[in-house]
Amino acid sequence: MKILLIHGPNLNLLGTRETGVYGVQTLESVNQRCSALANELGVELEIHQSNSEGGIIDLIQAATNTVKGIVINPGAYTHYSYAIRDAIAAVRIPTVEVHLSNIHAREEFRHQSVIAPVAMGQIVGLGVNSYLLGLRAVVELAKDA
Amino acid sequence: MKILLIHGPNLNLLGTRETGVYGVQTLESVNQRCSALANELGVELEIHQSNSEGGIIDLIQAATNTVKGIVINPGAYTHYSYAIRDAIAAVRIPTVEVHLSNIHAREEFRHQSVIAPVAMGQIVGLGVNSYLLGLRAVVELAKDA
Amino acid sequence: MKILLIHGPNLNLLGTRETGVYGVQTLESVNQRCSALANELGVELEIHQSNSEGGIIDLIQAATNTVKGIVINPGAYTHYSYAIRDAIAAVRIPTVEVHLSNIHAREEFRHQSVIAPVAMGQIVGLGVNSYLLGLRAVVELAKDA
Amino acid sequence: MKILLIHGPNLNLLGTRETGVYGVQTLESVNQRCSALANELGVELEIHQSNSEGGIIDLIQAATNTVKGIVINPGAYTHYSYAIRDAIAAVRIPTVEVHLSNIHAREEFRHQSVIAPVAMGQIVGLGVNSYLLGLRAVVELAKDA
Amino acid sequence: MKILLIHGPNLNLLGTRETGVYGVQTLESVNQRCSALANELGVELEIHQSNSEGGIIDLIQAATNTVKGIVINPGAYTHYSYAIRDAIAAVRIPTVEVHLSNIHAREEFRHQSVIAPVAMGQIVGLGVNSYLLGLRAVVELAKDA
Amino acid sequence: MKILLIHGPNLNLLGTRETGVYGVQTLESVNQRCSALANELGVELEIHQSNSEGGIIDLIQAATNTVKGIVINPGAYTHYSYAIRDAIAAVRIPTVEVHLSNIHAREEFRHQSVIAPVAMGQIVGLGVNSYLLGLRAVVELAKDA
Amino acid sequence: MKILLIHGPNLNLLGTRETGVYGVQTLESVNQRCSALANELGVELEIHQSNSEGGIIDLIQAATNTVKGIVINPGAYTHYSYAIRDAIAAVRIPTVEVHLSNIHAREEFRHQSVIAPVAMGQIVGLGVNSYLLGLRAVVELAKDA
Amino acid sequence: MKILLIHGPNLNLLGTRETGVYGVQTLESVNQRCSALANELGVELEIHQSNSEGGIIDLIQAATNTVKGIVINPGAYTHYSYAIRDAIAAVRIPTVEVHLSNIHAREEFRHQSVIAPVAMGQIVGLGVNSYLLGLRAVVELAKDA
Amino acid sequence: MKILLIHGPNLNLLGTRETGVYGVQTLESVNQRCSALANELGVELEIHQSNSEGGIIDLIQAATNTVKGIVINPGAYTHYSYAIRDAIAAVRIPTVEVHLSNIHAREEFRHQSVIAPVAMGQIVGLGVNSYLLGLRAVVELAKDA
Amino acid sequence: MKILLIHGPNLNLLGTRETGVYGVQTLESVNQRCSALANELGVELEIHQSNSEGGIIDLIQAATNTVKGIVINPGAYTHYSYAIRDAIAAVRIPTVEVHLSNIHAREEFRHQSVIAPVAMGQIVGLGVNSYLLGLRAVVELAKDA
Amino acid sequence: MKILLIHGPNLNLLGTRETGVYGVQTLESVNQRCSALANELGVELEIHQSNSEGGIIDLIQAATNTVKGIVINPGAYTHYSYAIRDAIAAVRIPTVEVHLSNIHAREEFRHQSVIAPVAMGQIVGLGVNSYLLGLRAVVELAKDA
Amino acid sequence: MKILLIHGPNLNLLGTRETGVYGVQTLESVNQRCSALANELGVELEIHQSNSEGGIIDLIQAATNTVKGIVINPGAYTHYSYAIRDAIAAVRIPTVEVHLSNIHAREEFRHQSVIAPVAMGQIVGLGVNSYLLGLRAVVELAKDA
Repeated sequence: MKILLIHGPNLNLLGTRETGVYGVQTLESVNQRCSALANELGVELEIHQSNSEGGIIDLIQAATNTVKGIVINPGAYTHYSYAIRDAIAAVRIPTVEVHLSNIHAREEFRHQSVIAPVAMGQIVGLGVNSYLLGLRAVVELAKDA
Repeated sequence: MKILLIHGPNLNLLGTRETGVYGVQTLESVNQRCSALANELGVELEIHQSNSEGGIIDLIQAATNTVKGIVINPGAYTHYSYAIRDAIAAVRIPTVEVHLSNIHAREEFRHQSVIAPVAMGQIVGLGVNSYLLGLRAVVELAKDA
Repeated sequence: MKILLIHGPNLNLLGTRETGVYGVQTLESVNQRCSALANELGVELEIHQSNSEGGIIDLIQAATNTVKGIVINPGAYTHYSYAIRDAIAAVRIPTVEVHLSNIHAREEFRHQSVIAPVAMGQIVGLGVNSYLLGLRAVVELAKDA
Repeated sequence: MKILLIHGPNLNLLGTRETGVYGVQTLESVNQRCSALANELGVELEIHQSNSEGGIIDLIQAATNTVKGIVINPGAYTHYSYAIRDAIAAVRIPTVEVHLSNIHAREEFRHQSVIAPVAMGQIVGLGVNSYLLGLRAVVELAKDA
Repeated sequence: MKILLIHGPNLNLLGTRETGVYGVQTLESVNQRCSALANELGVELEIHQSNSEGGIIDLIQAATNTVKGIVINPGAYTHYSYAIRDAIAAVRIPTVEVHLSNIHAREEFRHQSVIAPVAMGQIVGLGVNSYLLGLRAVVELAKDA
Repeated sequence: MKILLIHGPNLNLLGTRETGVYGVQTLESVNQRCSALANELGVELEIHQSNSEGGIIDLIQAATNTVKGIVINPGAYTHYSYAIRDAIAAVRIPTVEVHLSNIHAREEFRHQSVIAPVAMGQIVGLGVNSYLLGLRAVVELAKDA
Repeated sequence: MKILLIHGPNLNLLGTRETGVYGVQTLESVNQRCSALANELGVELEIHQSNSEGGIIDLIQAATNTVKGIVINPGAYTHYSYAIRDAIAAVRIPTVEVHLSNIHAREEFRHQSVIAPVAMGQIVGLGVNSYLLGLRAVVELAKDA
Repeated sequence: MKILLIHGPNLNLLGTRETGVYGVQTLESVNQRCSALANELGVELEIHQSNSEGGIIDLIQAATNTVKGIVINPGAYTHYSYAIRDAIAAVRIPTVEVHLSNIHAREEFRHQSVIAPVAMGQIVGLGVNSYLLGLRAVVELAKDA
Repeated sequence: MKILLIHGPNLNLLGTRETGVYGVQTLESVNQRCSALANELGVELEIHQSNSEGGIIDLIQAATNTVKGIVINPGAYTHYSYAIRDAIAAVRIPTVEVHLSNIHAREEFRHQSVIAPVAMGQIVGLGVNSYLLGLRAVVELAKDA
Repeated sequence: MKILLIHGPNLNLLGTRETGVYGVQTLESVNQRCSALANELGVELEIHQSNSEGGIIDLIQAATNTVKGIVINPGAYTHYSYAIRDAIAAVRIPTVEVHLSNIHAREEFRHQSVIAPVAMGQIVGLGVNSYLLGLRAVVELAKDA
Repeated sequence: MKILLIHGPNLNLLGTRETGVYGVQTLESVNQRCSALANELGVELEIHQSNSEGGIIDLIQAATNTVKGIVINPGAYTHYSYAIRDAIAAVRIPTVEVHLSNIHAREEFRHQSVIAPVAMGQIVGLGVNSYLLGLRAVVELAKDA
Repeated sequence: MKILLIHGPNLNLLGTRETGVYGVQTLESVNQRCSALANELGVELEIHQSNSEGGIIDLIQAATNTVKGIVINPGAYTHYSYAIRDAIAAVRIPTVEVHLSNIHAREEFRHQSVIAPVAMGQIVGLGVNSYLLGLRAVVELAKDA
């Protein structure tokens, strides 16, 4: 069973900048911890990062036949990308939206997710744990599907 | 006379998913019907699909000297891409915006088009016919221009 | 097969006033072009114009058993007549809403149609062509019904 | 003592259409049940249906000297007819506004009544019973007046 | 030179009801004072009252060739009749909107006039004087036109 | 058949204070009239008053197996208690919301009921009659269920 | 009987600038026409222009014992000076607010007057006639007071 | 290490009603699965359910010295209980907010949580897994604190 | 003369937590200073703290015959408890609302008090002095009543 | 220690007009009571009234080196003078905003104070007592500073 | 060629207070740097500071015949002075609006400038450089005019 | 010292289209003038244009170690690209946002910049000068950093 992990815009800068908000772990380190957990849960994990809205849509569409679950941190696209939302709604693969920081405790514009209504669930504010718990959740959902 | 037909994000999935909303025809079948009508109307039809906002802007800009009319279904970009709007306003080629589904009978966020104010006209809710009528309309506009 | 064409308030003044917005064709000339197309499509066309909201509702209700499709330009009632909306929803005859001008490029209050959510489709901004394409659309819908 | 019962736009279609929302009783059957109850309560009942906003205002104004109470279902005019509101406020006859369906459980625009602030009371969501209870209520109010 | 004076819905009840808001003069008495002033100013005055939105539109359209100025108190239609607004904009006869009461000191919904943007001017709150000054104003405008 | 009547916060003060808004009848007198009508209708009536939001939820939950209908005046909780709303939605007992005063003619915040969308119906503005008619309504609903 | 005429900010530039909006008459010429009419009506006219909000309040307060009516064009202060509003409400001298241009046909922010609710009436859009009719109106009001 | 699990209003009805939204598991079954996981994670779990806003505040305050982390499903209080929010902010115990259903895919009023800004994180839409992952998350947070 | 002092939710935690916002004094110390001042002013002071909305309503209702003035800090209920508002309006005992912190300098939701419109006055931002001055104020009001 | 007391626009009319809202005491009488209390508290009191926004800013700026606390009733400027707000924020002298009437029980526009967020505290609705308590408060603040 | 530099309310306090927001330079030092640059650019620079809205309007009006460009920092008037806006629009002298701080990164109310739509350009957030660049800009504009 | 100049979507069309809004200079000519000024200021200037949101983010991220300042005209992305905003905030290179036209004098949607709060400053409406002044500004900022 393959799970897709997508990191949205600017997440490649993780751990090197704004560590007060996003923590000191690098994206590589996050990915390693996710891969380790995937291993433990007996699932294959494919990981991508993209700054491009269209690129993220391409990734989601490409997952159609091979992937059983998606964990996505859409970064700032969370708040306005109805195109990514439509892609997730279209492929109908169980998807969990995750965020490192607590978006509800930050700027007003970050309080709304246009992705959340078409995701199965959303996990926010728990740092790297948002990813790890999101992976656990999506594996459960994929099993039930 | 060349007409440009642009399909926006996720329209490549047409006919295979969410057929309740968008109908059972595939994008290929829509394109064939459009090409047939173009033939009948004696115009050349160039067709593109792109998931990328920047890619759609590139297509519109490239049309500047060779294309006499544009039929565009901007997909979800309809609702927030002021950059696509600016591209259409800049090239000043008669443009008709089309939608397969009735966007006014769906989620609140789909009721507003930021593209429509700079298009010549808009046709929504008529399935493949939205494209065919849009093609007829833009050919008329191109003739008058 | 009979199709009903309804012109809402002030459309009887067409072609004689505000020609910058609505074009120079008179209502009679629009009706002649619609009738000609109806002929070509092999359908009967019944045409009415009314300044009265209640009168338009009466027309829609009267269509119940004899009419297979409605093309309606509700004029300014487009923006607030929930009563006309209810009439269209009640009779369940396929209906296409049309507008001569691009309502999305005019005053703010014209951007919203309270009719559109219960119509099958909407065609705006294409001058007389909005009517002609609307007629084509509704004939197709009537055939499918 | 005469009571006036006014049915607003599209209520003449009752029972024959959209029975999921409005129930299967026809307007005639509603009127018969209201007349029977009027009989039982010893009051005369005058009943009108109109699709016309101005027509409804005329009915209200005409009631001035002869009618002791009004039961009105203003249909879609409920949500925007400040003119009907002004008529009710002007004649100062005790008025109860009734609705067959629960307007608060339907589309957003149906949640607000511009009539309610000048009516004595409002009864919604109870099907034919909304009318019957409204009649009981207005007879009580007329007695107290 | 003929001037048209239009009284909107419920103004026929003037002087007999809600005298605290609208004053004790009847509509007849208002009309007599207006006619007397018209006489004094050397203009012909045609006066109508209607509760019907469509009826008021008909009156405005009929004025096209014979009338040089319109004084209109649109009553409650002031606040939502975009159809009457369109009629006034279409006939391009100088129009002054008048109100007996100070609409800005009453309920929130009365603060906005959808008619005012297409009228030449608006006079509110001065009782019968709103009409008399409106008549003076429109005669001046008609002379200048 | 048992019917539950719930009076929300501050209704125990009825008849002794703010009689201009709520009338001069005490809660006891309201209850007596309701009990008399229940008797007449052949149903058992259980009556509670509570100032506590949680207490009202407890009452609704406790009704699950024994009660066939609920008449509730949620007092000020009407306007914000989504928790009471959820309780009513959960127990699925036919419920009619009643109010002594016309909430639409009072302060802005009283115009919205968060309870109404999950109630079967709502009766407002008719004084004690709101309760009596609500009782009649809920008994009818209980019979039909 | 003395009437006070107050011109607000920037009205001293009248006739020399933005003549498309405000007309070609200078403030002096407006004042002469007002004085002539005052003469004709047998009242004394005191005229002031001020760019200062506090200065206008001082003028209104000073009018308390000597002035029987105020005609005021508050200029841009119309839209936000609650302090001028309070001054007018405090002195309780009959006041008519006037505007040369039709503020309802201009920018959104000019559609609201915070002064109007405490004035007796408002006259807009009639050029110099707004002042002359305002003077007539306030003299009538002063006579009735 | 003790963790507190708080179930808000109406969650005691879990599994017996509205199973389409909340699933078929009873609250007891949810609690058993949480207790089992707590066991596995080596923490003590104290569980409470309350329909009372004040009761939930009391529970949170009582946790001050004995509890290292809180998992809370505030039910409908999520959307308006600033008092519960203040309690969580005051005790400064790491708190994770959980929801069984995807609140972002339900009614508008459920999209906003007034609790989330003071919680460490939020997990929604994953059924019983929301609780289990919330427990894992809060144990991690408690260890780091 | 007895005065009632009510502390709302979470105020029992005063002085031990969030001292940056609320100061270092404990509730006991606040109460001692209030009692001392009551002594000095020759009035009896009854003090309660409650986390429960219904509990606070009960306290206010119980004050009806014995208490001459109320000082209340409604805590977070300030911003949404229309039920507490109704209780205060019902008992008609002079009431002063107090807050330790400056609610206008904190989160947006704290800027509005739904209690204030029915209180006699409001004192905010002055720490313990808000209570002491509130006590002085309410004693004056009680003397005048 | 010197305290500055500033009365904003129209407060010079106190006691002579709108006594229903503001009470019958004149400004002179208010000032005498404040001066008496200042005496009692052992502080010097400097008092100014100004109708001018700029004048009030000048007064605040002039206080910089000599004044230890400010009591200000900004009158209508309360609701929009960001310039006065900036002056208070700039001089950093402890300031208490006071209002005679309960601004939260009056017109909507009076509910918001743009001054309050930069004042230390706010006292409203207590008549002359608002000033006296404000003076007490600011003296305490000045002592602590 | 003369350029006018206007400093709005509270800018005279520059450099002595709130240096975290506005920097440590005094207004005198800002003026010296501007004068030096004016010298370098070969233009005459006239500098004024005023706390008074009316005073600023007077300055702008007085510039009509002698000044070729205006650099203005309207301070807090930026956000609500439609009267200053009208003055700038009236004199039609090229005007550049400048701000020391980045108004878009501060309180919500500072994000909107009512002056900007009638200025030629706006420069914000660059400290003293906002003035120097504004001076350069306006000199260029004055040359082109 | 290297400075990065980024032109957003559709700016490649500069000077050839919509010259009424954006002026007649081509992008090449703008770039030449910027390069000449860079030369004069002794800095290296790297220039890019992109229609792609993701592409612009890539450019900003790539600047991290080599670039000391960024001048960016984000075109239409100004109004909604929170992803570009996050990129600028992340790299912490001093950035000045520039616009050729006065965005505050155009359509409503252009009045808000989501980029501005994380830029150091913003310069709008000065044509090519916006770029030149932006370059000057960013060089100063880079020197200070």
